[in-house]
Amino acid sequence: MQIFPFDITARSGAARMGALHTPRGAIRTPAFMPVGTAGTVKGLYPEQVRAAGADILLANTYHLMLRPGPDRLTRLGGLHRLMRWDGPILTDSGGFQVWSLSALRKLSEEGVAFRSHIDGSAHFLSPERAMAIQADAIGADIVMQLDECAPFGAPRAAIESSMLLSARWAERCKSAFGERPHQTLFGIVQGGVFPELRRESAARLIDIGFGGYAVGGLAVGEGHHAMLETLDGLADHLPDTRPRYLMGVGKPLDIIEAVARGIDMFDCVLPTRAGRHGQAWTWQGPLNIRNAKMAEDDTPLDGALDCPASRDFSRAYLHHLFRSGEMLGQMLLSWHNIAFFEALMARIRDEIASGGFPEFLIHQRAEWKSQAAAPRPRVGE
Amino acid sequence: MQIFPFDITARSGAARMGALHTPRGAIRTPAFMPVGTAGTVKGLYPEQVRAAGADILLANTYHLMLRPGPDRLTRLGGLHRLMRWDGPILTDSGGFQVWSLSALRKLSEEGVAFRSHIDGSAHFLSPERAMAIQADAIGADIVMQLDECAPFGAPRAAIESSMLLSARWAERCKSAFGERPHQTLFGIVQGGVFPELRRESAARLIDIGFGGYAVGGLAVGEGHHAMLETLDGLADHLPDTRPRYLMGVGKPLDIIEAVARGIDMFDCVLPTRAGRHGQAWTWQGPLNIRNAKMAEDDTPLDGALDCPASRDFSRAYLHHLFRSGEMLGQMLLSWHNIAFFEALMARIRDEIASGGFPEFLIHQRAEWKSQAAAPRPRVGE
Repeated sequence: MQIFPFDITARSGAARMGALHTPRGAIRTPAFMPVGTAGTVKGLYPEQVRAAGADILLANTYHLMLRPGPDRLTRLGGLHRLMRWDGPILTDSGGFQVWSLSALRKLSEEGVAFRSHIDGSAHFLSPERAMAIQADAIGADIVMQLDECAPFGAPRAAIESSMLLSARWAERCKSAFGERPHQTLFGIVQGGVFPELRRESAARLIDIGFGGYAVGGLAVGEGHHAMLETLDGLADHLPDTRPRYLMGVGKPLDIIEAVARGIDMFDCVLPTRAGRHGQAWTWQGPLNIRNAKMAEDDTPLDGALDCPASRDFSRAYLHHLFRSGEMLGQMLLSWHNIAFFEALMARIRDEIASGGFPEFLIHQRAEWKSQAAAPRPRVGE
Repeated sequence: MQIFPFDITARSGAARMGALHTPRGAIRTPAFMPVGTAGTVKGLYPEQVRAAGADILLANTYHLMLRPGPDRLTRLGGLHRLMRWDGPILTDSGGFQVWSLSALRKLSEEGVAFRSHIDGSAHFLSPERAMAIQADAIGADIVMQLDECAPFGAPRAAIESSMLLSARWAERCKSAFGERPHQTLFGIVQGGVFPELRRESAARLIDIGFGGYAVGGLAVGEGHHAMLETLDGLADHLPDTRPRYLMGVGKPLDIIEAVARGIDMFDCVLPTRAGRHGQAWTWQGPLNIRNAKMAEDDTPLDGALDCPASRDFSRAYLHHLFRSGEMLGQMLLSWHNIAFFEALMARIRDEIASGGFPEFLIHQRAEWKSQAAAPRPRVGE
């Protein structure tokens, strides 16, 4: 396993600004990873994703192992080549979607057997198989350990035994991952909303040793405040020298608050999913492009954003496209939202570097105070 | 009414190569106009349409008069500004869609009353109103007269009286159009598959005098051969100095055959509609990207085409996108098909200029012999 160099160049409280250096290029942190579930960021061309400022994509192991499948992916030369994305790719372990999407799953110490939600075919995911699919077939640059996600609201004992199983799987993942000079492996901190379980999970992962540490099992319904309480102080129990990744988060305010608590990496389907449903994110909050008051609004979504979708088309046109059910509406709003999220991350990095981050946080809290934590979607992207 | 300069620079039998010069730029002929029914070529960005080689778009008056509506279009500054397309736009008269899409239509000498297929609202289209909507509200560069389309298979007497009504409407359109220094008006030859009715229609339109002459009421179910028979010799009855436009056609072989019969302009929803359904057009004919043999085909759709959709992505990836129901698959195939149709027109122009057109026609007839005339779709695009 490679440990990618991680330079922290500025700090503001627990927040850090820096870069994670992969063989496929640097990831500026704090970073937002657009989600390309099935090998495409829905509705965007790869070069639009890159031009919007994304240094890395996330892809879903669960979806890709079902279609096109690991054998076919291997024969086609891996995901970077297939989807024409030459930057780094992070894959999740597939665990979350197995819990949320698949049918007839059966969990054992060995792994999890499940049936595809697409065609009912039988599959098995173990720590060893998760490593082979992510690192060999997909060819991900950053591979996630296989973890188990206990459902939100489960009793403490269930959360604890699930966390311990994930920790044992983490060790098997590390062994199975082996030498890989150009790829790295992240562990996933579990433990629900129980600080002491989170700390124990972190300690076990640090003992094993990973290239980065993710926080899993949040944004699953616990709400904005419970999520932030769980994050409070958690970073102190993770190595300062390694990137920290909050999985599946989130809305813009979730992201800023998590950065303030020491998180470096994020992914969420929100920009593209919201875009497909006519919701555009702006510095003033989300707006619904289907709203009647958009019908003759000749202004762009954000004339200051260096993205054609944000700058070159009027809200009136976008409104017309959505009212007419035109694909271009979904394409433009998804593109704008990805550009907005990447602009948000660039702004966060600038504010950390310039010392303005605390003020920025207070300002955006007021601006976006009505936001709650984005629920983690059940159906991947 | 402006008469746009039309330069014919090469000929091959009845086929002509040249350019129609509009204030918004030259249209190289023979020309294929991508269809942007509701103010968007489905699934493409305007600059992709332009880069693919399209000099002009077609938009549908029927759809635009219902949504966003002429008053709103006027307030928003017309269609070019709304959709960010600075090249010329041709609008159809709305007549065809009134016959094929709307409900409860009632025809009179004055015009046609109908109800919207979207919300049942009542509308009226007369020659005068068609001119106001196309020329004033939409701001089309090339405006089509309002015509009536008798259904395919109607008795000769019905076709004749429909043609005569269209001719009377043509005269009213010309009067209503008036002085317009930057816009032109085309008449539409009707008369079904009856050569003598077509000739009478042409003669009446020439008496009135138009900037160009369209052939309407074909590709509505009569078949490839009946369509070509109707075109045979028709060009001789239209002014040599004016562009001729075959409405709603067609498949690549239809286009080449019609060029050989003196047609200069075409429009069809086929490239984008077929693209959305997984059909890619190539020099070897259409291929279905969902076909199992595409699953591991690592070659692009057409590596020689200067279009990223044709050149940069493998058939295996496109297959995966369609099997996964991903929007990017529809976007890429629609883009490729528009690029292919524009490449076809460029090839036709080159072959006419170089003297190779007759041989090209024979070669493509053999290559594409299984094609029949594309039925004109009922639902606009």
